[in-house]
Amino acid sequence: MATQLISEETRGVFPIAATPFSEDGSVDFESIDSLVDFYLESGAHGLTILGMMGEAHKLSDAESTEVIGRFMRRIDRRVPVIVGVSSPSMRKIVDLSKAAMDEGCAGVMITPMSGLKTEAQVLGYFDAVFDALGPEIPVCLQDYPTVTGVHISNETLLKLIDDHPSIVMLKHEDFPGLRKLTEVRKHGDRPDARRISILVANAGLYYPIEMRRGADGVMTGFAFPEMLVKVYDLFASGEADAAEDLYDLYLPLLRYEYQPGIGLALRKEILCRRGAIRCTATRSPGPALNRDEHAELTVLMDRLQRKLGG
Amino acid sequence: MATQLISEETRGVFPIAATPFSEDGSVDFESIDSLVDFYLESGAHGLTILGMMGEAHKLSDAESTEVIGRFMRRIDRRVPVIVGVSSPSMRKIVDLSKAAMDEGCAGVMITPMSGLKTEAQVLGYFDAVFDALGPEIPVCLQDYPTVTGVHISNETLLKLIDDHPSIVMLKHEDFPGLRKLTEVRKHGDRPDARRISILVANAGLYYPIEMRRGADGVMTGFAFPEMLVKVYDLFASGEADAAEDLYDLYLPLLRYEYQPGIGLALRKEILCRRGAIRCTATRSPGPALNRDEHAELTVLMDRLQRKLGG
Amino acid sequence: MATQLISEETRGVFPIAATPFSEDGSVDFESIDSLVDFYLESGAHGLTILGMMGEAHKLSDAESTEVIGRFMRRIDRRVPVIVGVSSPSMRKIVDLSKAAMDEGCAGVMITPMSGLKTEAQVLGYFDAVFDALGPEIPVCLQDYPTVTGVHISNETLLKLIDDHPSIVMLKHEDFPGLRKLTEVRKHGDRPDARRISILVANAGLYYPIEMRRGADGVMTGFAFPEMLVKVYDLFASGEADAAEDLYDLYLPLLRYEYQPGIGLALRKEILCRRGAIRCTATRSPGPALNRDEHAELTVLMDRLQRKLGG
Amino acid sequence: MATQLISEETRGVFPIAATPFSEDGSVDFESIDSLVDFYLESGAHGLTILGMMGEAHKLSDAESTEVIGRFMRRIDRRVPVIVGVSSPSMRKIVDLSKAAMDEGCAGVMITPMSGLKTEAQVLGYFDAVFDALGPEIPVCLQDYPTVTGVHISNETLLKLIDDHPSIVMLKHEDFPGLRKLTEVRKHGDRPDARRISILVANAGLYYPIEMRRGADGVMTGFAFPEMLVKVYDLFASGEADAAEDLYDLYLPLLRYEYQPGIGLALRKEILCRRGAIRCTATRSPGPALNRDEHAELTVLMDRLQRKLGG
Repeated sequence: MATQLISEETRGVFPIAATPFSEDGSVDFESIDSLVDFYLESGAHGLTILGMMGEAHKLSDAESTEVIGRFMRRIDRRVPVIVGVSSPSMRKIVDLSKAAMDEGCAGVMITPMSGLKTEAQVLGYFDAVFDALGPEIPVCLQDYPTVTGVHISNETLLKLIDDHPSIVMLKHEDFPGLRKLTEVRKHGDRPDARRISILVANAGLYYPIEMRRGADGVMTGFAFPEMLVKVYDLFASGEADAAEDLYDLYLPLLRYEYQPGIGLALRKEILCRRGAIRCTATRSPGPALNRDEHAELTVLMDRLQRKLGG
Repeated sequence: MATQLISEETRGVFPIAATPFSEDGSVDFESIDSLVDFYLESGAHGLTILGMMGEAHKLSDAESTEVIGRFMRRIDRRVPVIVGVSSPSMRKIVDLSKAAMDEGCAGVMITPMSGLKTEAQVLGYFDAVFDALGPEIPVCLQDYPTVTGVHISNETLLKLIDDHPSIVMLKHEDFPGLRKLTEVRKHGDRPDARRISILVANAGLYYPIEMRRGADGVMTGFAFPEMLVKVYDLFASGEADAAEDLYDLYLPLLRYEYQPGIGLALRKEILCRRGAIRCTATRSPGPALNRDEHAELTVLMDRLQRKLGG
Repeated sequence: MATQLISEETRGVFPIAATPFSEDGSVDFESIDSLVDFYLESGAHGLTILGMMGEAHKLSDAESTEVIGRFMRRIDRRVPVIVGVSSPSMRKIVDLSKAAMDEGCAGVMITPMSGLKTEAQVLGYFDAVFDALGPEIPVCLQDYPTVTGVHISNETLLKLIDDHPSIVMLKHEDFPGLRKLTEVRKHGDRPDARRISILVANAGLYYPIEMRRGADGVMTGFAFPEMLVKVYDLFASGEADAAEDLYDLYLPLLRYEYQPGIGLALRKEILCRRGAIRCTATRSPGPALNRDEHAELTVLMDRLQRKLGG
Repeated sequence: MATQLISEETRGVFPIAATPFSEDGSVDFESIDSLVDFYLESGAHGLTILGMMGEAHKLSDAESTEVIGRFMRRIDRRVPVIVGVSSPSMRKIVDLSKAAMDEGCAGVMITPMSGLKTEAQVLGYFDAVFDALGPEIPVCLQDYPTVTGVHISNETLLKLIDDHPSIVMLKHEDFPGLRKLTEVRKHGDRPDARRISILVANAGLYYPIEMRRGADGVMTGFAFPEMLVKVYDLFASGEADAAEDLYDLYLPLLRYEYQPGIGLALRKEILCRRGAIRCTATRSPGPALNRDEHAELTVLMDRLQRKLGG
């Protein structure tokens, strides 16, 4: 069976996968299997691995390749997989991208290198990326200025889309970013421009509003991916209000997860409680929960259960 | 009647007041009166004026004084008023603080000057502030690194509280900041340390969680202050779950307001729709809503009405 | 005699003037007079007041106006004066600009407001500035990303120049910025584009190199302005190597002054030693020298004397 | 012969070595040999490899190890070698450090991870580093806030030195940083505190001033390391003024190299012109010179030759 590549038409829910570690800091490959099962059972339409939430920058070159391999074998081409390949080195971007595509991945995700100061530099950076990467590999452009410090205006983003046909998807997490989402969407309606796939992120804090604005889905690590899928399905069937009703039940917990840093530990804790992985450990330096946060999480999860059961 | 000063015991809901402008950019003094009425009818326990949301940095020296005067006359000492006095100039901090106290204000709010890089610099800065300000004026310390870029560790914050008895209140808006809140609260439980007032902010995104952690109230500009008050009252009467239930109804709208920049325009729009002020204008350079945002706000307000009415 | 306005043709040395304070922090108006005399005796072709080095943001509205007035009376239209009017408030920019022009100033200097993240925002900001300011007042655009955090690409800078005929001068202090200088200079050679005045800054650290690249002069606060003037004159008479020889003698001291923060205290100390002002005080919060720095300054000044005398 | 480790007593000139690349971007191992020869012939007392100037973050894990090996074989224990091991992953820091020490390196250099916001976080970060690294490997702490964005106060730096005996050396490149240098030096004079080695950097812009303040040497990539050595020797023999005279001859060129970004390309160009490496290429994304910069470099090098009498 041929590899399923991401394209301008890709839609749905692509959870950002955690990378499971054992207490001793080694990669927990068996938990990769159970995590894949968890995401696929939630109905996810795809998966993104080695993103920031996947602690990709803490893996050695060899580990990165092994982690990709393990995910790919378990997924077994049932859904498309996007691999984060961002790096301060063009050569590393290319090498990891090629390795990922060889493993049967559907595309790669690239965020502009930290330290780009002007939009001319952003444009030049992606010119260099696509020169080095070639035209064959489909790319999801991650626009996440809160973390990268690289700010891309609407105009520059549209120019990047126009200039580089390889960019088939936007991971949209500028904040606040609703207007930018609308601009990219409208741009795709012009006869001379491409409509690309837009998956939203920012922990999903504006997911239903963004779906109303024309997003094609969501790419985030919220530890209840089945909600993301149901909301997506409700929007797909035209039931925006029902979608938002369901989303709102999870919003108190989602906004708790939304906290930077500690959010990763919260997600791993929930994934553990739900049986998706065996160990909550993050790699050093990384966050860990204390007693207060364990208790708060329990309160919020109990409240959610009550509302869902009511 | 003597001025009511803020103190370590101050509790409750202190809305951050907008500064109303007319379409031509002049201060709309009549709307100050109606805005005061709106806040007091909501049950607010105090008011904060000339904060960031009040666009204080866009007022001339003369306007600042006039705005304080108008607020004070309308409030007429019914509730304590805190005045934002942050400035890159020590002299301006002192001059505005003295003018505010002369008008009968209850205290001043100070955020560390942008550009402080180390915590030693933060400590030195506040040493200079209190040298210049003297010991008489009670101060609310605003800790808002997202905007100021000044990061204060728990240790430094506790040292500031220990060193400066004038600091009677913390406006807590570090993010994520729940652990810091707990540290400050616990510090106050030690026999040799002061318990100060902690009012939380960050648009109220974690308000009930922070109340469970021991916050004394909230200081934010959410345009439905009556919710903030009811949640406060429910917590005060031990009904944390009921408080959170009520809060959760407003959370979808609150997280929409939470967007930086545009959030001010959203709040002014809601205040207008609710009759609190006459004009949504912000001073240039400032945000304005477009059609999409008007529509989204209407959807969110309608959904809120439905839930409240249900 | 009519006011002499700055224009695209303006050339020469425009020292950034300090604002002299007394030990008690009040403005030392008499030292303004002696400072003007000092700068004019050095041969300066103009003067810039109320810049960052002038601690403009620490002055009250009333003081700003008084300081402008005092400088203008002493200068008495002998050289053109540029006034810094940057502010987070459009209204303040306009009000101060008009007051300055009424006093007979030659133009105003504006740096983009901190917090502008994209170049689209920079373009929008200056659209708003010139909408508010009108077409009559000549403007020096200060491009100083190290301090403002606002990065302007060559393309955006050229567009600003094309869009706004009021921009007649660039204060060039991007760092590193030699290529940008060359781009602006080349742009002015195109028949359809304007050649504007370029005065360089960054403490003068690359002054002769920038003159070789086509700069029209320098706008910095180096406390030996007579060197800046002589170097300018040597370049004007085609003696680039002699200019650089002279400059190099001062470079050890100039690079000592180049230190941010403390640099202002160093300059005020030198101005005091040279009799230009009476007191080294900066306004709080501001830098002050310690014994080490006094001694180092003495060593460097002595070494300079020796080289000049040799 | 046993490995020579860096210690609190280490002094002298430790050039930061470039990593030579060929035009095709591969590591030019033969140029490593000639570069080592160049540095040792200049009289350098040690060498630092895989620093920022060495483009370490653009090397794969395998390349890092090979580069270390090649440098070590050519150096053949004639001088001590420090290896940069900074990484966002604790595991990578440890793995690379151990590999380096196994190769006979003298110590490792660590800069705090970008993103540390408070000094409490800095302290916690280094606690974790030394927990993971163990007590055996001597460490040079690189304090370079301009690049890392991590600001360390004097107090925190002294505490790090007190807490971690493994820190035997400071690479001092805070800017402005003269007072911090003095504080660290004075701290070492206290009977209960350790005097550690201080090598200065910041391109050497304040090298002689810092030697007068008690620095033990310099660690920078200035492409005329023989000047750094001669200045060091002159200071060592008490001839501070002669040292500064010599330094001043090179200052115009040194401050040209001081430009961030392009500075690396300038250094590689000079190293090429001087025969130390075969190719000026930096790895993508990296800087390259244009015609203006080639010409300016030639002017500055010619002027230097003339002053030197050559």
